[in-house]
Amino acid sequence: MTAPSIQRFARVQTPGGMAYAEVIDGRAHLLTAAPWDASARPTGEAAPLPVVRPAPVAPSKIICLGVNYRDHAVEFGHELPKDPLIFMKPPSSVIGPGEAIVYPPYWTQRVDYEAELALVIATRARRVKAADADAYILGYTCLNDVTARDLQRADGQWTRGKSFDTFCPIGPEIVRGLDISKLAVACFLNGERKQCSTTESLIFKVPQIVEFVSHVMTLEPGDVIATGTPSGVGPVKPGDVVSVEIEAIGTLANPVAAG
Amino acid sequence: MTAPSIQRFARVQTPGGMAYAEVIDGRAHLLTAAPWDASARPTGEAAPLPVVRPAPVAPSKIICLGVNYRDHAVEFGHELPKDPLIFMKPPSSVIGPGEAIVYPPYWTQRVDYEAELALVIATRARRVKAADADAYILGYTCLNDVTARDLQRADGQWTRGKSFDTFCPIGPEIVRGLDISKLAVACFLNGERKQCSTTESLIFKVPQIVEFVSHVMTLEPGDVIATGTPSGVGPVKPGDVVSVEIEAIGTLANPVAAG
Repeated sequence: MTAPSIQRFARVQTPGGMAYAEVIDGRAHLLTAAPWDASARPTGEAAPLPVVRPAPVAPSKIICLGVNYRDHAVEFGHELPKDPLIFMKPPSSVIGPGEAIVYPPYWTQRVDYEAELALVIATRARRVKAADADAYILGYTCLNDVTARDLQRADGQWTRGKSFDTFCPIGPEIVRGLDISKLAVACFLNGERKQCSTTESLIFKVPQIVEFVSHVMTLEPGDVIATGTPSGVGPVKPGDVVSVEIEAIGTLANPVAAG
Repeated sequence: MTAPSIQRFARVQTPGGMAYAEVIDGRAHLLTAAPWDASARPTGEAAPLPVVRPAPVAPSKIICLGVNYRDHAVEFGHELPKDPLIFMKPPSSVIGPGEAIVYPPYWTQRVDYEAELALVIATRARRVKAADADAYILGYTCLNDVTARDLQRADGQWTRGKSFDTFCPIGPEIVRGLDISKLAVACFLNGERKQCSTTESLIFKVPQIVEFVSHVMTLEPGDVIATGTPSGVGPVKPGDVVSVEIEAIGTLANPVAAG
C-alpha cells in the first residue's frame, strides 16, 4: 500500500453559487459535488482562490471537545476528564478564512481565541469503532473556537458564550491524506505566538473521539468535530488579527471587528 | 383586525420524497414548499396522515431553555435565572410522532421525558426586539427534550445527555394563529399524568426568548426553540409510551425502545 497523496479542498463563491473545489497550485479547481461525494469530478473550470472566502464546509453540526489538552486542563484547574466532554456550536456561527469575527456589542467583556485541529466527516457515521474511524474522515482543517469567556463562566452551560454569529472560523482548506499524529498547533495574535502545542498532547485522540461522538449522535458528511485547544488562550479586541496555524494544514487568519 | 385563523402543518413521506402539508380535517394537503415560504401553494393532492410520521420540520438548529418554569427550578434546587439559560440539541436527534425513542444501550441508567412548548421560526431572525417577535414565528408545536439525566449530571455540560439520536421528538403538527399565553402543558407516561402546568408559569416568555436567542445567533426558517419544561420530570424505560400534550396543539406520543 502506498501513502495516500495529499489533497486540499475549499469552497468558493462563483457566479453560479457556492462551489466546492480542489486547491491545486493555489487555484480553485471547481468540483461537480462535495468532495465526500463519490460522484465529485472536476468541472474543468479553475478560479483564483480569494483570501477572504467561505469556510471549506457547511456542517449540519459542529461538535467540540472541552479540556482535551493536558496543558489547557492545568491552565483552567480542571481534572483530566475520564470521558471526552462535548459541546456544540451552531452552523450559524461558521465563517471562513479572512472573514471578520464580530465582537458582540453587548453582554461580553472578554472574547477569547482557541486554536483547534478539526476533522470533517466524509460518510454518515453511527456507532463507529475507533479502529475504523479513518474511513469516516474526509480530512482535517483549522478551527477557532471563539468564546465569550465571561458568559461561558456566568452561564455554566457553554452554549451562549460559544455560539455568537462569526464565533466559528473554519479553514482555510480541508486537507486529505495527512498523518495528524504529530502536528504543531499554534495561535498568533497580531503576529505574536500565544498558543503552541502539538497533537501528541491530545488527551483523547481522533479515533477515540469519532468512536465516542458517533455513539451519541449520527454524524453526517460535512459535520465537523473540533478536538480541543491547548494552553495559552487569551482575549482579542476589535482591530486584532487572530491566526490559527496548524503544521501541514495552513493558516486560518481572521480580523476582529466591533459588532 | 380579525383574529388570525388557525392552520396546522405537518410533513409526510410521499413517493416523491418528504413533503410539507397543511392538515385539514385530519388529512395532509400537500404543499409545493415549506409553510414559511411565501411561494407555498397546495399541490391539489391530499393523503392520509399516518400516526407514525416525520417531525413537522427539519431544523438547522434546536435551541432549548433550561430552568424556565418556576416549579421545575424549585424541583432541581436551581435559583431563578436572571437571563435565559440556553443549550442545543443536534438535528440528528429529531424524530416525529409515533417514532421510537431509543434508549442508548450503554452509559446511561436514567432517561427522562421533559414536555415542552416549542416555537418554529418562519423568517430569518437576527437581533429581533421582543415586540416584533411574533412576525418571525411560524407557529407552535410539542417537543420532548429527552435527557439522559445521569450523563447530564456527570458531564456538567448538558450536550451529551440531551443529544442521542431520537432524543428530540417534535410534533405532531405546527399550529399557526394560536394565542399561547395560557396553554396547559402536560406529560403522560403510559397514560398517567406526570407533568402538568401552563405557559403562564414560564419565567421568560416567548417574545423575550426570541429577542435573547436572536441576539446570540441568527435563526433560520424552520429552526426550533423549546421553551423549557415544568416540574414532574421522571424516567422512562423500554416498553413505555410517553406523550407530550399541549392544549390546542395536540399530543406527541412516542414509544420507548431498547437500543
